[in-house]
Amino acid sequence: MINVCIFSGGLDSTVLLYRLLERERPLRAVSINYGQRHGRRELKAASEIARIAGVPHDVINMSGMASLLPGSSQTDPDVDVPFGHYANPSMKATIVPNRNMLMISAAAAICLAHGGGSVIYGAHLGDRAIYPDCREEFSIALDQALRCADDRPINLERPFVFLTKAQIVKMGAWNGAPLEMTWSCYLGGDVHCGACGTCIERREAFRDAEINDPTEYAPTAPDLDTVLATIRS
Amino acid sequence: MINVCIFSGGLDSTVLLYRLLERERPLRAVSINYGQRHGRRELKAASEIARIAGVPHDVINMSGMASLLPGSSQTDPDVDVPFGHYANPSMKATIVPNRNMLMISAAAAICLAHGGGSVIYGAHLGDRAIYPDCREEFSIALDQALRCADDRPINLERPFVFLTKAQIVKMGAWNGAPLEMTWSCYLGGDVHCGACGTCIERREAFRDAEINDPTEYAPTAPDLDTVLATIRS
Repeated sequence: MINVCIFSGGLDSTVLLYRLLERERPLRAVSINYGQRHGRRELKAASEIARIAGVPHDVINMSGMASLLPGSSQTDPDVDVPFGHYANPSMKATIVPNRNMLMISAAAAICLAHGGGSVIYGAHLGDRAIYPDCREEFSIALDQALRCADDRPINLERPFVFLTKAQIVKMGAWNGAPLEMTWSCYLGGDVHCGACGTCIERREAFRDAEINDPTEYAPTAPDLDTVLATIRS
Repeated sequence: MINVCIFSGGLDSTVLLYRLLERERPLRAVSINYGQRHGRRELKAASEIARIAGVPHDVINMSGMASLLPGSSQTDPDVDVPFGHYANPSMKATIVPNRNMLMISAAAAICLAHGGGSVIYGAHLGDRAIYPDCREEFSIALDQALRCADDRPINLERPFVFLTKAQIVKMGAWNGAPLEMTWSCYLGGDVHCGACGTCIERREAFRDAEINDPTEYAPTAPDLDTVLATIRS
């Protein structure tokens, strides 16, 4: 029996991975290369963090998926990454259809091959406005399907589902998670752009958590207060 | 809105594909290369059948999965393909953990990227003894999870779930499905071995359906009546 953590190399799943280090069962981290726009940076961060955490890490290559998923900014080069607030409807362009079920399915296969256990993913409260597959009702139904999928015991855990991203940042700082190594930016450039919805969410989370943001943002990144004031007006 | 058929190139999914040709919505066939032992033959059959059926066909390559799934005869070269009857507990060695959820997840992603619709798979009554992820309770739960995964409409259909394989063979013969082009054998050699559980199931289905079996079996294939008599004694 093992724990398998869905691990993107982002803030949430890195804090999750560090929380799971405290458990007794063997832990594995699983990342999926689905051909995501920001994959080069995200998967590099994931590999480096898993290495320093000392957690076995598998990257499953299904990069051919991207060409089959038109319409998402993360898989379709013709769709721009939206700027603005992460809860703005424009952020729906970032939805990769059924991404969480695909990642959880692959992680569950590995978990079952090791006798079963838990698959854990870092969906949080801030995700639910835009991403249906981060909502509790999705997790409940998929957990039920997993329990029917095999005779070996397995369940789906989502310990952050009622936490804000700021609470996750606080938890990570307290646990010693290497927040500075995590990657969020959906543009996937050399440094975080500081302007896309995902970067704004990251910046706001550090500010709300009153934790110093160690991230290097591009010089072109807008002032956070100005962006948030615009969004809220 | 489209219909996406999970398509292995085997008997069941080929008959399913030919049934779905009658529907109005655009149809796509999706195969998964998860590094399966019999993948060379199975995926070749799938490509050829999709081509003559005139159905767009995507093969998603996630062949790296196999090395992460020890213990299954179809992904682990150290585990032998079991011989005997397909409902014998020894056939559990052929279970690829969470295979159906993985295939359905990928097909659903493609379906949603095209606005939603249906994902259809060919689980049938004979599968349920050995494969939990072919049972109706699994399909019900996963259908519910799919409906929660996205705001676009989607559902999971399993029209064969209460049919025997013999009934499927009959249906295929009636529909003009190219049964002779389908691939079942889990060994994945040049011709069907005629002796593994999957070949025995195929042979028995044709016999029970009273349809001439067009399959070329290896000269070493045992007499079907003898095998079945041994199993039933």
